[in-house]
Amino acid sequence: MNPGTDRAEAAVPRAELGERIMARVDALAACSESPRALTRRYLTPEHRCANARVSEWMRAAGMRVHIDAVGNVVGRYEASSPGAPALVAGSHLDTVRDAGRYDGMLGVVLPVACIGELHRRGERLPFAVEVVGFGDEEGVRFESTLLGSRAVAGTLDPALLGATDTEGMTLAQALREFGLDPARIGEAARRPQDVLGYLEVHIEQGPVLEAEGLPVGIVTTIAGATRLAVTLTGRAGHAGTVPMSMRRDALAASAAAVVAVERRCRAEEGLVGTVGRLEVHPGAVNVIPGEVRFTVDVRSADDARRAAAAADIIAAIEDIARERGVACAVRELHVHPSCTCSPWLASQLEAAVAAEGLTVRRLPSGAGHDAMALAALTDVAMLFVRCKEGVSHHPAESITTEDAAVAARVFLSLLRGFRPFGAAAASP
Amino acid sequence: MNPGTDRAEAAVPRAELGERIMARVDALAACSESPRALTRRYLTPEHRCANARVSEWMRAAGMRVHIDAVGNVVGRYEASSPGAPALVAGSHLDTVRDAGRYDGMLGVVLPVACIGELHRRGERLPFAVEVVGFGDEEGVRFESTLLGSRAVAGTLDPALLGATDTEGMTLAQALREFGLDPARIGEAARRPQDVLGYLEVHIEQGPVLEAEGLPVGIVTTIAGATRLAVTLTGRAGHAGTVPMSMRRDALAASAAAVVAVERRCRAEEGLVGTVGRLEVHPGAVNVIPGEVRFTVDVRSADDARRAAAAADIIAAIEDIARERGVACAVRELHVHPSCTCSPWLASQLEAAVAAEGLTVRRLPSGAGHDAMALAALTDVAMLFVRCKEGVSHHPAESITTEDAAVAARVFLSLLRGFRPFGAAAASP
Repeated sequence: MNPGTDRAEAAVPRAELGERIMARVDALAACSESPRALTRRYLTPEHRCANARVSEWMRAAGMRVHIDAVGNVVGRYEASSPGAPALVAGSHLDTVRDAGRYDGMLGVVLPVACIGELHRRGERLPFAVEVVGFGDEEGVRFESTLLGSRAVAGTLDPALLGATDTEGMTLAQALREFGLDPARIGEAARRPQDVLGYLEVHIEQGPVLEAEGLPVGIVTTIAGATRLAVTLTGRAGHAGTVPMSMRRDALAASAAAVVAVERRCRAEEGLVGTVGRLEVHPGAVNVIPGEVRFTVDVRSADDARRAAAAADIIAAIEDIARERGVACAVRELHVHPSCTCSPWLASQLEAAVAAEGLTVRRLPSGAGHDAMALAALTDVAMLFVRCKEGVSHHPAESITTEDAAVAARVFLSLLRGFRPFGAAAASP
Repeated sequence: MNPGTDRAEAAVPRAELGERIMARVDALAACSESPRALTRRYLTPEHRCANARVSEWMRAAGMRVHIDAVGNVVGRYEASSPGAPALVAGSHLDTVRDAGRYDGMLGVVLPVACIGELHRRGERLPFAVEVVGFGDEEGVRFESTLLGSRAVAGTLDPALLGATDTEGMTLAQALREFGLDPARIGEAARRPQDVLGYLEVHIEQGPVLEAEGLPVGIVTTIAGATRLAVTLTGRAGHAGTVPMSMRRDALAASAAAVVAVERRCRAEEGLVGTVGRLEVHPGAVNVIPGEVRFTVDVRSADDARRAAAAADIIAAIEDIARERGVACAVRELHVHPSCTCSPWLASQLEAAVAAEGLTVRRLPSGAGHDAMALAALTDVAMLFVRCKEGVSHHPAESITTEDAAVAARVFLSLLRGFRPFGAAAASP
């Protein structure tokens, strides 16, 4: 090994790559439904905008690019032997409402920037590297999450084509408006033998790495999640004339339910529960609410603990509805079991972290990720990047340029040293 | 008195007037922002539609019509001596969302139909009769109620011109779009010496008259109301990664507040409290709510009881916010004291009810009415009409044609026998 060459290789990307990644994340944030805050839902013009920018960066990195059958943008950096199986990296390009700019986007932009480095140096690897920008992970538009990654994993239920957004447009219609054919969404699915594994780089969205002064960490397990859609139907009435004892107030019942969700999830460690959406009808100051719809999101790394909490919450809501003479409908939007990262793949990430002279920190993920869906197709691992104060799903979400550069160097190091499952370790 | 003539006069309007009133109420219901449910807010195209229909009926009843400076439609049936002071009747033409069709509209359509009877018979009275269709009573659009009747009473605060609707349009802009000049809203105010009294016909919106088998009742007192707008601001965050103990969830805090409003108002008779609107931001299934805005409406016929309850509710919300590390802003949207109907005017209504051979039933009103605002200008009285199951502010709101006819006969009887305050009783 030539120490001089090594230092030069190390020095160039550390500065340049970090800045390039941050500039590209900023450029993607401009593809937003609102000029004041970042919101980008699946199959919207803003999604198209993000796909176009990512496609351009992929092409500049020497990748072959296409939009797949569900609107994911897919770039392939060919192997030294064309047609070889691919190591896939990626994350999502959709956002929550009033989102931060790193959640998802970092895991698309960072691998593309790293591949740009390989391309600039003319480096080919004995395997292909693909990067996927998934169109839907957050599930904001159709209330059903991971649509992009489930399609790639081949686990997307075609019944979801009938799911509707708040304007009543179905997923099938939205795909057509995006220029895609709903009948062909099955074509987005990849064959297991073509994929060597899946790697996702993502901000931590929690406070652990910052508290320990570490720029990156390796994910052990992704928490499982249960999501419910609840509708409580009482009777609308005049706010001045219906005595309290005669009311069937859908909002008062829902408020009791929100309090019950919080109480149940506070009662146990390693469990969180959230009512994130709640809509009141008719929603006038002087009308007793007749109908309220809300969501419940329950998560835990321990599947049994999560299932027990979800069952208790449903029972509590049903009790509240019964006591108040309010009709209750609970629909399970999705149930995702927790997902364990593959030790053989995670250990290569750990080696890459150690090779950068950093402490190896393993930690669970409280948030769901595309890797959960990809686990049905291939082995998965995740690299977490420290974020400020653990804040995410909020405009104040942020990471440093330096941490982006460190994560890029770890990712490059992993690519250069990557050995498929079962392959012998490369000789030093 | 000629008994033959009397029977004929009695027979014709009973059948015809009831049907005419019901048909006109139905015709007004077609002026709606939604084809499926009745919603008609102040200064919208649907408000213009309602004004146009009412104007047409007023002209057919021999009335002189104009739209006043805040968009109320005003018709005048001239006295036998032109320019004489007027007995004013009226109610509102705006609705809540998904409203019934009688609340407000009956009190405009019924007097106009009765004046049509006078006109058809060529009857003039020694005083003028005016009917006003107020543009805003419910306060749905600008969150501030009684805009139409307060303008007529001369108590509309010009600062309200800056109030905005949910699209951010100010009342001043909305008036201009409606073809009115915001600088001239003061011209809607009437001089006390030009008005003999105010009479409002309205559905009961409660269950009392139906329970007692009575078609009409005479209002004694209108309950006072306090309306609050509350904003709780916590911190948005990822639903999966922020431990329950570190959350500042604006919806969980608001749910506790809704429960507190209900508990306080259940604790005392003659008191009602309602949270009718509640909006969650950002409102995504996987985001901890960062901000929630909601309204509180507290009513009682007893002002001291209402004021004490409102103060307790504000204190409870502030306590909840403090305990949860959530910022709290409470704004008083309006405070209306309770309003007592004038005995001299109410007793003439009672006499007209008795003259129809009906039981005289006095009852309080839990709902607010334009009469509350008019009480600042002149003496007021109200005639309640029985409605089905006490349901109001709901599409199922209904009255019978027969009850509409009875109320019309009472109203005609009152007009024919009306004596201004201090005038000697007419000789029999």
